[in-house]
Amino acid sequence: MVNIAVLGYGVVGSGVVELIKTNYEKISSSAAQEVKVKYILDVRSFPDSPYAELFVDSFEVIENDPQVQIVVETIGGTGAAYEYTKRSILAGKSVVTSNKELVAVHGQEILELARQKNLNYLFEASVGGGIPILRPISQCLSANEIYEIYGILNGTTNYILSQMLLNGSSFEKALENAKAKGYAEADPTADIKGIDTCRKICILADLAFGSHINPDRVPTYGIENITEEDMAYAKVMGAKIKLVGRALRREEDSVVAYVAPHILPESNLLSNVEDVFNCIVVRGNAIGDAMFYGKGAGKLPTASAVVADVIDAAKHFNARKYIYWEKGSEDYLSDPLLMESRWFIRAEMGEEEAEKIFGSIQVIGEKPGAIAFTVGPVSEKVLIEKLNGRRLISCYRILD
Amino acid sequence: MVNIAVLGYGVVGSGVVELIKTNYEKISSSAAQEVKVKYILDVRSFPDSPYAELFVDSFEVIENDPQVQIVVETIGGTGAAYEYTKRSILAGKSVVTSNKELVAVHGQEILELARQKNLNYLFEASVGGGIPILRPISQCLSANEIYEIYGILNGTTNYILSQMLLNGSSFEKALENAKAKGYAEADPTADIKGIDTCRKICILADLAFGSHINPDRVPTYGIENITEEDMAYAKVMGAKIKLVGRALRREEDSVVAYVAPHILPESNLLSNVEDVFNCIVVRGNAIGDAMFYGKGAGKLPTASAVVADVIDAAKHFNARKYIYWEKGSEDYLSDPLLMESRWFIRAEMGEEEAEKIFGSIQVIGEKPGAIAFTVGPVSEKVLIEKLNGRRLISCYRILD
Repeated sequence: MVNIAVLGYGVVGSGVVELIKTNYEKISSSAAQEVKVKYILDVRSFPDSPYAELFVDSFEVIENDPQVQIVVETIGGTGAAYEYTKRSILAGKSVVTSNKELVAVHGQEILELARQKNLNYLFEASVGGGIPILRPISQCLSANEIYEIYGILNGTTNYILSQMLLNGSSFEKALENAKAKGYAEADPTADIKGIDTCRKICILADLAFGSHINPDRVPTYGIENITEEDMAYAKVMGAKIKLVGRALRREEDSVVAYVAPHILPESNLLSNVEDVFNCIVVRGNAIGDAMFYGKGAGKLPTASAVVADVIDAAKHFNARKYIYWEKGSEDYLSDPLLMESRWFIRAEMGEEEAEKIFGSIQVIGEKPGAIAFTVGPVSEKVLIEKLNGRRLISCYRILD
Repeated sequence: MVNIAVLGYGVVGSGVVELIKTNYEKISSSAAQEVKVKYILDVRSFPDSPYAELFVDSFEVIENDPQVQIVVETIGGTGAAYEYTKRSILAGKSVVTSNKELVAVHGQEILELARQKNLNYLFEASVGGGIPILRPISQCLSANEIYEIYGILNGTTNYILSQMLLNGSSFEKALENAKAKGYAEADPTADIKGIDTCRKICILADLAFGSHINPDRVPTYGIENITEEDMAYAKVMGAKIKLVGRALRREEDSVVAYVAPHILPESNLLSNVEDVFNCIVVRGNAIGDAMFYGKGAGKLPTASAVVADVIDAAKHFNARKYIYWEKGSEDYLSDPLLMESRWFIRAEMGEEEAEKIFGSIQVIGEKPGAIAFTVGPVSEKVLIEKLNGRRLISCYRILD
């Protein structure tokens, strides 16, 4: 039997406890032993919960109980979660988490600590919710040189974009709707501004390319400035606008990572990913493109990934730490400015002026005093030079 | 250092040798040791190959060399491959393979032998080529009760169907084209008739549901009778015809598995999978739907999966056999006859007669003396009873 402690009884934490009960037989069979929740740590009290007697309000109880072999951290953030994670490992316990912020910011340090103590720090649920993605990258694609990863990594923003497209509603209305449906939090800033996507693409890049990326240094744009008019033009192109996190290996020891809304033509399968679903594309030199799709958030899908990690940790106590990356050097992250792509541009000018500035363009549509067109392949740097201070209405990379 | 021997120097075997050379650093780093091809077994000689000195023509050399820890079997079939696999395990070597026929037919027995000898028998490449699917099912989704798996599992037939749709060509012409492009073998029977898909859905079901399924007992229909007219009607419905392998858990200890062309509406993401790509959907009670997409065949994609298994075997010599299933009982497999679904039907009759026989129908199109319509949900058994001996032009399940 393996005893676990769940830190934080929010959506994911309660999902983990529920799933361990619901799929008790399957989980015990997979782990080749009984998996038992011994403690739940939460500052709130849940007197009416069927698990009421498992609640403790002091981490020390868990820390000092040698029977607890695995700690599930679903507190979130980099405060108590960070401290308890380190103390758990120092106390000889493996840690499983869905906390993408903590992994993106302090993952390398925690992995190093876990390595020293010969324990596991597992976080499949931190990217793509229930979608198997970190283990496939680190194990199934281990014979590949991976050169690019990109994906729709945030369900909330994808739901909003789907709503804008489907109902022709404005960003504000779609956000309201997402809140009403429980898909967006009261303060949706981290989702809307791409910060959540940024953390996830950093974790993917850390794992695939082997060195830590500081999320603060990754250029990140959200969806708050996407207009119905942009959407309509994308539709004319047979394309959709999606928020994409993207990381590419450039030369040896250099990686480009960024988050931005992209125009995705219909030929890109990602363009068909709607609502709260996530989808991740991994490009390797042997496999070509592999794609992973599923529910990127939600109580049970996320718990599914957490509990799979618990099972894995239970089976590999004091063994296997296949997930690891190094500290990155200062110049490891290079700027997407030099990266060429095709672009979609809307600007307050006529066709003649646009051609004068950008050279050969493909016009998508024209209104009095404004034009929409595609141009490139060209780098952002060259675009900025060509613009020479002129402002655009909107501008998106096209991801073919 | 781990020494491996590659049995069979065909497409996959030569791909494995090539990939180990190309990605030498990445593979050694992943395996935490050097991976070296010590022998290649083939009845043919390759005097001009850069690996000429590695070739042996007698399996005994490999069997009797204790330095060889992992045997890669890419011979195919159930003859020499079966014998050499068992002898390798008995000689204390883990075995990695892409041989779906052998796994589907004798997998359970070989896994049992490997378990007794505390060795690994790994076959990620046997389903979905390079797509990570078996490990995600057995590890990442281990907290789920999986209740259904289905997918496009054969690249050759999917290429043919894509060609028929795109160019409006007949099955025969599309097959010719596939042969010219090297996507279909000289004798494409196993692909065309769904036999290859059957082997793969059996392996997926074995793993996901825990007991062996005999491929010979799985109802299997191929694509050879799909006509341009069927395709055209599907298009009218905004749908596509795809060859799908499907397995569902019914009640406890009962599984339905079958292979047949299905009508897939646009809303099913599988309908967008074109050409030689494969795609597999796994449905679990926590994750919901997860989808895995990529190249289902080809030299390097398949080698990518084989070498990942080699790396895994190298890291877990004399340990971990997470892949295993039991012998199935006689009544484990139940008949898809009772499974309800919507159906697409073409028949030589008028609307009135069709309604008299089937009750409420949705007409897709009508020609003098023939009608195309959808009906259901209804089971195949009830359909057959209603037909009462009448013949149909064509009939497909609709997979919503």
